[in-house]
Amino acid sequence: MIPYQLIRRKRDGERLAADEITAFFSAYADGRLPDYQMSAFLMATFFAGLDTDELAALVDVMLHSGVQLDLSAIPGPRIDKHSTGGVGDKASLVLAPLVASLGVRVPMMSGRGLGHTGGTVDKLESIPGFRVDLSLERMMRQLDAIGCALITQTEEIVPLDRKLYALRDVTGTVESIPLIASSIMSKKIAEGVDGLVLDVKRGSGAFLPDVERGLRLAQTMIGIGEVYNRRTVALVTAMDRPLGFAVGNAIEVEEAIFALRGEGPPDLRELTIALAVEMLLLAGWTDAHAARRDAERALDDGRALEMMRRIIEAQDGNPAVLDDPALLPQAPVREVLIADRDGWIGEMDVRGIGDAAVALGAGRATLGASIDPAVGFHITAKPGRHVARGEPLATIFAASVDDAQTAVRALRRCIRVGEEKPEVLPLISHRVTASGPSLVR
Amino acid sequence: MIPYQLIRRKRDGERLAADEITAFFSAYADGRLPDYQMSAFLMATFFAGLDTDELAALVDVMLHSGVQLDLSAIPGPRIDKHSTGGVGDKASLVLAPLVASLGVRVPMMSGRGLGHTGGTVDKLESIPGFRVDLSLERMMRQLDAIGCALITQTEEIVPLDRKLYALRDVTGTVESIPLIASSIMSKKIAEGVDGLVLDVKRGSGAFLPDVERGLRLAQTMIGIGEVYNRRTVALVTAMDRPLGFAVGNAIEVEEAIFALRGEGPPDLRELTIALAVEMLLLAGWTDAHAARRDAERALDDGRALEMMRRIIEAQDGNPAVLDDPALLPQAPVREVLIADRDGWIGEMDVRGIGDAAVALGAGRATLGASIDPAVGFHITAKPGRHVARGEPLATIFAASVDDAQTAVRALRRCIRVGEEKPEVLPLISHRVTASGPSLVR
Repeated sequence: MIPYQLIRRKRDGERLAADEITAFFSAYADGRLPDYQMSAFLMATFFAGLDTDELAALVDVMLHSGVQLDLSAIPGPRIDKHSTGGVGDKASLVLAPLVASLGVRVPMMSGRGLGHTGGTVDKLESIPGFRVDLSLERMMRQLDAIGCALITQTEEIVPLDRKLYALRDVTGTVESIPLIASSIMSKKIAEGVDGLVLDVKRGSGAFLPDVERGLRLAQTMIGIGEVYNRRTVALVTAMDRPLGFAVGNAIEVEEAIFALRGEGPPDLRELTIALAVEMLLLAGWTDAHAARRDAERALDDGRALEMMRRIIEAQDGNPAVLDDPALLPQAPVREVLIADRDGWIGEMDVRGIGDAAVALGAGRATLGASIDPAVGFHITAKPGRHVARGEPLATIFAASVDDAQTAVRALRRCIRVGEEKPEVLPLISHRVTASGPSLVR
Repeated sequence: MIPYQLIRRKRDGERLAADEITAFFSAYADGRLPDYQMSAFLMATFFAGLDTDELAALVDVMLHSGVQLDLSAIPGPRIDKHSTGGVGDKASLVLAPLVASLGVRVPMMSGRGLGHTGGTVDKLESIPGFRVDLSLERMMRQLDAIGCALITQTEEIVPLDRKLYALRDVTGTVESIPLIASSIMSKKIAEGVDGLVLDVKRGSGAFLPDVERGLRLAQTMIGIGEVYNRRTVALVTAMDRPLGFAVGNAIEVEEAIFALRGEGPPDLRELTIALAVEMLLLAGWTDAHAARRDAERALDDGRALEMMRRIIEAQDGNPAVLDDPALLPQAPVREVLIADRDGWIGEMDVRGIGDAAVALGAGRATLGASIDPAVGFHITAKPGRHVARGEPLATIFAASVDDAQTAVRALRRCIRVGEEKPEVLPLISHRVTASGPSLVR
């Protein structure tokens, strides 16, 4: 294996043999191939892509770079969900306990937020005492005992992805469909799940804003799932506005708690139920209507909330937050963004909203930065709604008056009130399976 | 300047501002930007290109990374020639003394060979005693005293190119037209020349085999020359067969000596005269026919040979090689490749011939490897000629019988005798100036 020759051949659109991909990435995992050759290869891959066999070889190297969990000793179907990331996307906080409350094992490992999107484990850490850094042994015991664990990626699972992601992050090679797909799928396969539901976001707040690339990503991931016999289904969902109202950490947990009580914002509930239906179908439910009815009931009769209580207790958190969300961290300053005219709420710059949340301290611009769990936004404005002058559009929760005023100015640029009623994306537009995409409804 | 953002924008086909290019490459020159970000940028550039302004900014950073010679104290036009590299291309060894013998200053700095192509300074070093590593001061004194110096690139001239080239070499980013163009032109501009003739090779032995890319390279370099007010003209010439017969180092010098006596192979003479005409036109000759006549005379009446004698003396070499080429290093083993059938000599794998020369020891596969000056080939076969079974096609000059036999086998694969007379490229196909390319004859 002569690295620069493989780089050139990839650059020139040739297909590499599986053993060449294996040799190249294994050398990188072992520290025998320098970063500068890998970054050139990754950029060539951005342009030239990877075909199915190349991708399978890459996923294989990724998997073998670390531990692969064997969950076969834990009875019951093991199903996870992954979102490509959005603003205000707290669906996992509702979905995982909901589905687990119906007897499905949900071993959910999530990343931390980076850039304009938040991360599930950052949100969970705003619950006093809650630990996301469980050992794999403890995670598996918890999965066996109560059916769900919500933890962060450990060092043992796909360490090559960690190394590659750090390089991609600084070399402009994040937005490559095969690299995104192999990164996500290798981690999910290593987790030991039997099935996976993907929430692929589209719109101004998504990593891949246009639906064609979102669909290609979904199909690429589903293809990898087929190779490894992990059934994978994707929903393409709207990220032309935040999901629900809350954007932040503690305030997103609060909103999730309302949803677990059957009271949350309608879009959060609708998306959560739709994702739950897909997870239940993968887990063995044969009828989508029955799955929907079961999921709705589990939300409405308190079973999902009760499962969340058991998860919080098992992970050293204070379950009293479920009864009194005021126990979550609270920001000292509140400021309200008011509509400055009558009109329609127009298309939103959702990435801008995410960036404003990062600026406020709710997210991180660089790996390893710390966050303030209490700050964030409560954005009641939704594109396509009519508002009157003086009507509140959003509340800003900030650590200082200065921060709050900066955020008000930023949000005013992202949430416009105008003359025209904008086109709004359907909350769920496509369902993608191994046989291809279909429009929803 | 946030490096990964510039990489992403280049990747996405955006035009960068001149000061962004300057900041990015300056940071690399100063060691503030890591190799892995530069290699990703270079690969993005391979795909997305650089426009005229971006390229001018890059050349500017290159130039300012080192010393720029001021030759204004040396009277007379200062003209150089550069070849994109080929197999058996010893034209510079004839051309430089020829043009200098007509009163033009020729400050020729050349690279060493790498890969399948040889390097002028490697060839010169096969002359006993000949030094190519003159200081810039000594080079300028010699240029003033006798009109020509043939030296290697010094550390002071465009050190950023050295650093970038070493990275490109191992990251599959050599074959990018803007990167090749900026590398060559920045060095020639830093040398202080007033005009430059480019020999852009096409065919199986060229770095850019197809003529379209060769023309684009020529036009890109000419455009840079325009910005810096260095008149630049290019000839596109054939590299679907070696130039002349000799491939190696000492044996190429020997062939050049024959050419300087007016006796060399006809294609070498024809190309040298054509390049000389272009250099003379840049130097002030107003009439191409007069320039051709003057160049032919200087070869035929011994003036060019006499200039070579003065150059060799000035650079500590033994000028007696000009009278007795047997003083050059001689290989102990000779082997002859014989036609194994009657037929036409077909299309040649000229890159393969160059690679076989490297394998024999006449060139280097990696920067810093050493070479054997005595070994090489004398290939009398030319594509399109008819040969009879048993007729010699090439002589191999080797250090051992084993090496010679390996080379015979390699050459037999590269020089095929077949049923069909192949198409052969015209020796000189295009002339390219600032107003565009034109077909020759």
